[in-house]
Amino acid sequence: MTKSILVLHGANLNLLGVREPEIYGTLSLADIDQRLQEKGKEMDLLVECRQSNIEGELVDLLQSARDWAAGVVFNAGGYTHTSVVLRDAVAAIQIPVIEVHLSNPQARESFRQQSLLAPVCVGSIAGFGWYSYVLGLQALRYRFVIAL
Amino acid sequence: MTKSILVLHGANLNLLGVREPEIYGTLSLADIDQRLQEKGKEMDLLVECRQSNIEGELVDLLQSARDWAAGVVFNAGGYTHTSVVLRDAVAAIQIPVIEVHLSNPQARESFRQQSLLAPVCVGSIAGFGWYSYVLGLQALRYRFVIAL
Amino acid sequence: MTKSILVLHGANLNLLGVREPEIYGTLSLADIDQRLQEKGKEMDLLVECRQSNIEGELVDLLQSARDWAAGVVFNAGGYTHTSVVLRDAVAAIQIPVIEVHLSNPQARESFRQQSLLAPVCVGSIAGFGWYSYVLGLQALRYRFVIAL
Amino acid sequence: MTKSILVLHGANLNLLGVREPEIYGTLSLADIDQRLQEKGKEMDLLVECRQSNIEGELVDLLQSARDWAAGVVFNAGGYTHTSVVLRDAVAAIQIPVIEVHLSNPQARESFRQQSLLAPVCVGSIAGFGWYSYVLGLQALRYRFVIAL
Amino acid sequence: MTKSILVLHGANLNLLGVREPEIYGTLSLADIDQRLQEKGKEMDLLVECRQSNIEGELVDLLQSARDWAAGVVFNAGGYTHTSVVLRDAVAAIQIPVIEVHLSNPQARESFRQQSLLAPVCVGSIAGFGWYSYVLGLQALRYRFVIAL
Amino acid sequence: MTKSILVLHGANLNLLGVREPEIYGTLSLADIDQRLQEKGKEMDLLVECRQSNIEGELVDLLQSARDWAAGVVFNAGGYTHTSVVLRDAVAAIQIPVIEVHLSNPQARESFRQQSLLAPVCVGSIAGFGWYSYVLGLQALRYRFVIAL
Amino acid sequence: MTKSILVLHGANLNLLGVREPEIYGTLSLADIDQRLQEKGKEMDLLVECRQSNIEGELVDLLQSARDWAAGVVFNAGGYTHTSVVLRDAVAAIQIPVIEVHLSNPQARESFRQQSLLAPVCVGSIAGFGWYSYVLGLQALRYRFVIAL
Amino acid sequence: MTKSILVLHGANLNLLGVREPEIYGTLSLADIDQRLQEKGKEMDLLVECRQSNIEGELVDLLQSARDWAAGVVFNAGGYTHTSVVLRDAVAAIQIPVIEVHLSNPQARESFRQQSLLAPVCVGSIAGFGWYSYVLGLQALRYRFVIAL
Amino acid sequence: MTKSILVLHGANLNLLGVREPEIYGTLSLADIDQRLQEKGKEMDLLVECRQSNIEGELVDLLQSARDWAAGVVFNAGGYTHTSVVLRDAVAAIQIPVIEVHLSNPQARESFRQQSLLAPVCVGSIAGFGWYSYVLGLQALRYRFVIAL
Amino acid sequence: MTKSILVLHGANLNLLGVREPEIYGTLSLADIDQRLQEKGKEMDLLVECRQSNIEGELVDLLQSARDWAAGVVFNAGGYTHTSVVLRDAVAAIQIPVIEVHLSNPQARESFRQQSLLAPVCVGSIAGFGWYSYVLGLQALRYRFVIAL
Amino acid sequence: MTKSILVLHGANLNLLGVREPEIYGTLSLADIDQRLQEKGKEMDLLVECRQSNIEGELVDLLQSARDWAAGVVFNAGGYTHTSVVLRDAVAAIQIPVIEVHLSNPQARESFRQQSLLAPVCVGSIAGFGWYSYVLGLQALRYRFVIAL
Amino acid sequence: MTKSILVLHGANLNLLGVREPEIYGTLSLADIDQRLQEKGKEMDLLVECRQSNIEGELVDLLQSARDWAAGVVFNAGGYTHTSVVLRDAVAAIQIPVIEVHLSNPQARESFRQQSLLAPVCVGSIAGFGWYSYVLGLQALRYRFVIAL
Repeated sequence: MTKSILVLHGANLNLLGVREPEIYGTLSLADIDQRLQEKGKEMDLLVECRQSNIEGELVDLLQSARDWAAGVVFNAGGYTHTSVVLRDAVAAIQIPVIEVHLSNPQARESFRQQSLLAPVCVGSIAGFGWYSYVLGLQALRYRFVIAL
Repeated sequence: MTKSILVLHGANLNLLGVREPEIYGTLSLADIDQRLQEKGKEMDLLVECRQSNIEGELVDLLQSARDWAAGVVFNAGGYTHTSVVLRDAVAAIQIPVIEVHLSNPQARESFRQQSLLAPVCVGSIAGFGWYSYVLGLQALRYRFVIAL
Repeated sequence: MTKSILVLHGANLNLLGVREPEIYGTLSLADIDQRLQEKGKEMDLLVECRQSNIEGELVDLLQSARDWAAGVVFNAGGYTHTSVVLRDAVAAIQIPVIEVHLSNPQARESFRQQSLLAPVCVGSIAGFGWYSYVLGLQALRYRFVIAL
Repeated sequence: MTKSILVLHGANLNLLGVREPEIYGTLSLADIDQRLQEKGKEMDLLVECRQSNIEGELVDLLQSARDWAAGVVFNAGGYTHTSVVLRDAVAAIQIPVIEVHLSNPQARESFRQQSLLAPVCVGSIAGFGWYSYVLGLQALRYRFVIAL
Repeated sequence: MTKSILVLHGANLNLLGVREPEIYGTLSLADIDQRLQEKGKEMDLLVECRQSNIEGELVDLLQSARDWAAGVVFNAGGYTHTSVVLRDAVAAIQIPVIEVHLSNPQARESFRQQSLLAPVCVGSIAGFGWYSYVLGLQALRYRFVIAL
Repeated sequence: MTKSILVLHGANLNLLGVREPEIYGTLSLADIDQRLQEKGKEMDLLVECRQSNIEGELVDLLQSARDWAAGVVFNAGGYTHTSVVLRDAVAAIQIPVIEVHLSNPQARESFRQQSLLAPVCVGSIAGFGWYSYVLGLQALRYRFVIAL
Repeated sequence: MTKSILVLHGANLNLLGVREPEIYGTLSLADIDQRLQEKGKEMDLLVECRQSNIEGELVDLLQSARDWAAGVVFNAGGYTHTSVVLRDAVAAIQIPVIEVHLSNPQARESFRQQSLLAPVCVGSIAGFGWYSYVLGLQALRYRFVIAL
Repeated sequence: MTKSILVLHGANLNLLGVREPEIYGTLSLADIDQRLQEKGKEMDLLVECRQSNIEGELVDLLQSARDWAAGVVFNAGGYTHTSVVLRDAVAAIQIPVIEVHLSNPQARESFRQQSLLAPVCVGSIAGFGWYSYVLGLQALRYRFVIAL
Repeated sequence: MTKSILVLHGANLNLLGVREPEIYGTLSLADIDQRLQEKGKEMDLLVECRQSNIEGELVDLLQSARDWAAGVVFNAGGYTHTSVVLRDAVAAIQIPVIEVHLSNPQARESFRQQSLLAPVCVGSIAGFGWYSYVLGLQALRYRFVIAL
Repeated sequence: MTKSILVLHGANLNLLGVREPEIYGTLSLADIDQRLQEKGKEMDLLVECRQSNIEGELVDLLQSARDWAAGVVFNAGGYTHTSVVLRDAVAAIQIPVIEVHLSNPQARESFRQQSLLAPVCVGSIAGFGWYSYVLGLQALRYRFVIAL
Repeated sequence: MTKSILVLHGANLNLLGVREPEIYGTLSLADIDQRLQEKGKEMDLLVECRQSNIEGELVDLLQSARDWAAGVVFNAGGYTHTSVVLRDAVAAIQIPVIEVHLSNPQARESFRQQSLLAPVCVGSIAGFGWYSYVLGLQALRYRFVIAL
Repeated sequence: MTKSILVLHGANLNLLGVREPEIYGTLSLADIDQRLQEKGKEMDLLVECRQSNIEGELVDLLQSARDWAAGVVFNAGGYTHTSVVLRDAVAAIQIPVIEVHLSNPQARESFRQQSLLAPVCVGSIAGFGWYSYVLGLQALRYRFVIAL
């Protein structure tokens, strides 16, 4: 049976493709979401994509995923390093959550080198651009969803 | 004259009773709110209960309490440790605010051992489950409201 | 059956009511103890009160409480922040201990913001003057003693 | 040609003029906004003023300013010290942002002495009350807008 | 043309499958290497696997990979957190290196939460058991090798 | 009546205009001082400019300003971060002192991110090049001198 | 009228003169006390000397001094660096207390370089051997007792 | 000639055998002391055992041991990590003192990982339960007492 | 049945007896090993001694001990403070390992005061010269080997 | 024979008596110097007083004192906490230097709680206003000069 | 008589001349060694050059140098910052060792700013490329070897 | 053509040869300067030597060297560790500056182990007494001056 997956984008990711395309590439968030849905289909996954700049809305989205999703691929953006409430939400919902990042936060400013989310996620993937999400979907599919 | 009290629940507390009932008990947030309203009645207090996962909405709720509440019993959840703006709001509204927690944050991860709110609250109560709120109501009633 | 409770006061609390009454109120420690005994009676608790300025005597008093008390309400004063041996004693005696403070240590000097006792107590109450003890008795009575 | 400027107020600033007027003066946020619009007119600037208590809404407002504003005068309030996502938003929008504060955060609690925003703003002005905003407008006008 | 990839295992990984099989599974390092070679074939990659407990030998293996490998999937084990010389070697060899871990180091002791290698690797993958290596191979194949 | 203002430049600022003109512009310190005197005239301020590389001479200049100046615009250069004696001097002279910087120290090395002077100055302005001084004069004029 | 002064010696000072006389001199604590009583007489002070190795007994002695002494010369020994309760006692008794040390703690191990007592004492004298006590008596006599 | 040894137990060790016997074994402190006396006899040592919960009494016991004991086997319990005065006492008495612990403090909470006593003891033994004391006696006997 | 024990010496210990004999004694490592083998025989233990300066070889020796040794007495030398891989190896091999040191690292430079090995060893012994090894053998024999 | 003493005042002390007389008293530095010269005469000391705001001039004054002074009473003001060169000068001149302060730096801002000078001075006296200097002269006279 | 000198290169230095020649120059390690041997001849020194990537082999090489070399010029590469065992080896061998670096580690990442070796070397030279080694040879020759 | 070099000595170095000759040798600063001038002549360098104890004068000397010197050999003494303004001056003058020290600061007190100057100097040499300056001249001559 096809499983549903939430792909959740945090703050400022709605600017992808618009902001500095020579650095981040010309893919918009909509382009990425479309690719992820196609990749998902190949793995028999129904991929739902959401974005919000508001910390509490991300908490709401994670909480509601308990009812319909088999797992979450989550790029929390800047909230990764400051949000205790997102950490609490990930720990509470009891479905597997995978932390992904476009770039490698460990190679940036020191305040980005501590992830509050990592200890409550089942795994972390960072540094591969939009392909980080694909690897996240694949890890969910072959490590966690099969066993559901 | 009956006084009104705001009981304010922060992020992820809406999951109570649903999430891991063997740990947190089978009481939902609605059950707790009902009990607090009953306990309030015994103390001649009108208890209003609100919950939000969004930091800025909690700021809004605290600010509006200036107009109608004699005090606040506040469980900020994960925001306790990261939110300067909630601290500023508590300091600004000039009605007594009591910090409560279900569990004892000092016995958990190190990032939960610093409370930004404690220095601006009139007192702190932690570790007694839902009964922490009851003790908070009682402290408001017999230490602060009588003197109004 | 009436249960016995130890109320234990640490260093310098014997000066209450004498020292700076315009700040700490005119209640002496004897006055507070009398009130706690009365409040205890209303809850069907027999309240025993002890004070010592000597760290090791407080250890002795905690250890001996194992034999006769159903719980402890403990204000360790300045030892809260430095005493590993009091922490060890609380952890060893296996009856519920509640940490109380007259004022809110989190709002004072930085060396008062770390409590060595909190992680081994069942809960903490701070900031309500002598009424902190009353809330401690009540928490013991309705959360722990009933279940004995 | 007249340029548009966003003046952005963060959390708790909507209480200005109402809260403790003997300290902060009797100017409400509306009064300040009106003065800034008048001062702006003298400099041939069209000043738009916005306030929100919600971190993610401030991100949204900064992002949308890319389309219509020549610069931003930004008082993030308590978010100055905790928000990585606001920092990311300021860095992303590629129009000049000036950090302003009513008081001098460096003279307050230690957790207010680190600004996450300062490294990505073009400049910082603090300590002159509502006049900090006027200096911010002037700096934008004569250092950045002329060159557009 | 088929590309060659070095899969490099650091200290203590030779004990896999033997040590605590109820935790780490019954797969030995030889089993994992065989699976990676099969997975590699599907992606048209020739996978060479090496293990050493000796820091300097790992430096040698990384250096020699410059001559024959299109990329490295590297699990440095405990050296991840202490080895400046492995970091220097990764930075020097100028072929893409991906950091992988079986478990999630961020969820373990604090001395495992700092990776000296991450800033010089093209990406990091952690927490998916032996499947972390598969994701590493895939990332190398579709993000880096195609472009060679 | 025209008021006198001291503009005080600390160590290495005498090199302005000579050192790296492509970065700092071709304005020499003399050019800047002349502009400040003109800007001062427009505001009915008599601007006196002084520079010294010697910490103690800066103390002397601050102390003597008590007798003739209505305020000080002070760029302490590198002394900003190490000089307790300049801080003491600013605190002692009881006329308003405004801290200015050409660039934004918060965006540079970490040892420049702590200002010992900020807590005793009436305000801080940073990041606007020579125009930071103009904003400082204006702040002195309209916030402090009028009230003299 | 002759004033009484408490000279209070903390832990391990009873060993003076016995332990390593080639370093600490051949003066026993009794010898020092006798000299202080003689020096006191010259200044019209009645000097009472006490020693204890027990932290809480030192608290008791400080508290009781409120009733009969015009000031205290206090060498807390090793408790200087760890005792919050002695600090609280000094702050509570509201008679002038002067901190003295035989040697200079700032020149010894780092854990001796922080004094918890200094901020609540009226002054500190260190490094002059037994003569530190004499300077302490003199300071009490000519700075504090005269004004009684 | 038979030598005398002081075995000194610090705070909370009087609870051994009573507290959590499934963890600490069913040996009481009296049982241990008896075994140590027997083991001592085999080594021609007269073993004296003392326990106190009071820091200053432990100082007294260490000081008096100078007169009659050839060495000390010392388990300071929780005082190990906080007591400068015990450190000073050990350093002063000039007979060999060996630090012992039942469990391994380095494997427990971080505040137990610093021993103030270790630098002044001749050696440390930890982690072998009551047998740590036996090893301590043996080390005293064959490394220090023979040479007396 | 006679049990086998591995005595493992880390870096620079091969210089014993040669380097600074007036400090470390004239015993070479070979002398010590011979004594340990004799002491072992008295306890019915077969003692195998190995030394290496290479971190990874020490890992290899620990791993191979799983197959033939009933326990390990391990002096890791300078690696004690830096080696995560030795810690991992000790934790993995599931036979009892005892940490020993000739001198007392806690009394030396601060970078020697943290032992990465202690938390995974069954016990620690330090400060008794070559006799530390003898105590380690004895502890293994009477606390761990008997129970095999 | 009469001995000469240097009394050396550091930065900002030339403002004494002028600045905030309600706090620091109406004594100017000249008044204090006169009193010290009189007090010196009573002790058969010739007191020379110097002040400078320039760190390097204070170094010069200390160096030249080697040739004519039997000791120094030194109030370095704000340099106390930052000046390595003054520390080096005190250590180099090999005559006794006593650190004095008008107020108690330990009771002020944290950056005043570390003295770089204390470890190289023979003693420290703080908190007694101008009388700190008198105590310093007396200590020099009766502890050091007699022995010359 | 001609003296022998060991020039010892640590990890990753074998890549010199091959790796990034536009940065590090086109000199290979062999080229450098040849130059050092020539420069050595001019100073009547016989220069032996060795390189290893393995920490323990470097320990072995240092230890064996005791027997034949009059001094060591040592570039430990990345081990400079992490290796306690190399520090111990340098301290043990009792011949002069000079620390050299091609670049200036103090100007690089923070984990390169602490040298564990510097305190036990006779001197340090950094930042002059391959010429650092020449300066090291010269310092050995004219400061240490002459005195042999 | 002969090049000019500034040799700059910081605070307290004027005492060389006078202070503690048994430690620092009998060479005065004048002796050293003479030797450096002779060594300079051999390398075709004109060596100018200056010393000052005043931080700001050292800034002046560095600034003026821009006009006539091809490089600077700089021993800042105690200012090395505290002076941001000297760092700024070195960075500003754009001629090569080499940091030298007589002794090895890394082997002394911890506050001497951080050099603020090193990151802006082209290289560092420490620990060879007056010969450190000679090595500095040589490095300037053969690494930097030739290329002018």
